[in-house]
Amino acid sequence: MIKRITIIGSGNVATALAKAFVDNHIQLVQVFSRKLENAQKLINQLDKNKKIEAICDLKNLSAHTDCLIIAVKDDAIAEVVKQLPFSDKLTVHTSGSVGITVFKNVAHFGVFYPVQTFSKTNKTQLKTVPFCIEGNSELATNQLVKLAEQLTNNVHRLNSEQRKALHLAAVFACNFSNYMYVVAEQITSENNIDFSILKPLILETAKKIEGLSPKEAQTGPAKRKDIATINEQLQLLKNDKALQDLYQLVSNKIMDNQ
Amino acid sequence: MIKRITIIGSGNVATALAKAFVDNHIQLVQVFSRKLENAQKLINQLDKNKKIEAICDLKNLSAHTDCLIIAVKDDAIAEVVKQLPFSDKLTVHTSGSVGITVFKNVAHFGVFYPVQTFSKTNKTQLKTVPFCIEGNSELATNQLVKLAEQLTNNVHRLNSEQRKALHLAAVFACNFSNYMYVVAEQITSENNIDFSILKPLILETAKKIEGLSPKEAQTGPAKRKDIATINEQLQLLKNDKALQDLYQLVSNKIMDNQ
Repeated sequence: MIKRITIIGSGNVATALAKAFVDNHIQLVQVFSRKLENAQKLINQLDKNKKIEAICDLKNLSAHTDCLIIAVKDDAIAEVVKQLPFSDKLTVHTSGSVGITVFKNVAHFGVFYPVQTFSKTNKTQLKTVPFCIEGNSELATNQLVKLAEQLTNNVHRLNSEQRKALHLAAVFACNFSNYMYVVAEQITSENNIDFSILKPLILETAKKIEGLSPKEAQTGPAKRKDIATINEQLQLLKNDKALQDLYQLVSNKIMDNQ
Repeated sequence: MIKRITIIGSGNVATALAKAFVDNHIQLVQVFSRKLENAQKLINQLDKNKKIEAICDLKNLSAHTDCLIIAVKDDAIAEVVKQLPFSDKLTVHTSGSVGITVFKNVAHFGVFYPVQTFSKTNKTQLKTVPFCIEGNSELATNQLVKLAEQLTNNVHRLNSEQRKALHLAAVFACNFSNYMYVVAEQITSENNIDFSILKPLILETAKKIEGLSPKEAQTGPAKRKDIATINEQLQLLKNDKALQDLYQLVSNKIMDNQ
């Protein structure tokens, strides 16, 4: 069972996890950041009575830990793994897109992936955040599932292939839907309309799929096959060929998907 | 000042408006539906002490009203206007996409457009729903603005051109973002992953733009110009050329938009 945790990283994910561990009485041993002050800043946000060490050199990682959680930028994970001073501790990363093959020369490893954007997350929200778990052995997987279950009631076992598919789906559901908001903001701003008029509608669109499948929730001109409105709207986009293509492509997909 | 209202229609928008008028002590005179039972059903949901007449023939519209609100399907508005038995009452529709030219032979007219999807709206939510108002005269506009201000604290005057732009923006922000959820659901379902893993992330993506502009809120592989992940995800979509095109197009737009 994982009782002592070391966190490598001091960004949003590292901070959210550290808070959640401390709040749930799981021992944090050390926090690593390349800049010592960032590790210290993270620790200062936690319960002052816990003794947690800030370090800025991976050589100083304590062996008195059960699990190393690497919560750094995707492209820095491999470099961290290479510099680890020991290879016998359960070592995981928190990324949706980095494969499990990044753990070269580590005996026990896995993925501890919270499916959320952590810009504003607080401890209350983490309770419902889904965690996707993968381990290189049944033992590792079970240990990570048990750890995640102490933080959230929403734990899923996904293999690497499924996690890649989930990450692709998340790119559509989140990154691409956010880009649709970007386009909406451009259009409103070009027409001197306050973008915030659309905010209640955006929120309702996201809330709607709590109770309906996205396909059932689909509305709009393409769903109604309202070709007159579609053509009028394409005409409004005539100065931006790429946006026009995007509008046509998405409208076609919606019309095909009935 | 508008004191007495007639509602033509019995769908979601008509129902939400009728409830809001009654709750705000604005007199509802009649509710029209092509099926009398639908008009009656709507009225039965309202305060039983109010005397509101259900009708199913536009010839029976009472002249003792200050405003006719046409809340029917977009493509039925013109037909309703044609059948109105009088042309001297302020007559409005509630559509984002239908132009004001639909009011042929009406003296006073306008648009009373609530920017929301009404599938689940209750009276509490209407208080924050934006209303976009347009009138064919300063008098009509002012009357409609005052009426809307009794329902919501979020009233905007938009001319027809702006309303068309807003509707286009809403198609991106809502209909197209919902389609991105549709794709996400397809991908998860094809890979035996529970789509609801993505729901907290979808909700957070929408909530994020309360405090950040969509451009600031943008995350993901394209935002990071992470070409390796983009290529890997394009490869996962190799069996659906149109989705691959969509992924490439949106990713390019995000990369261009830095």
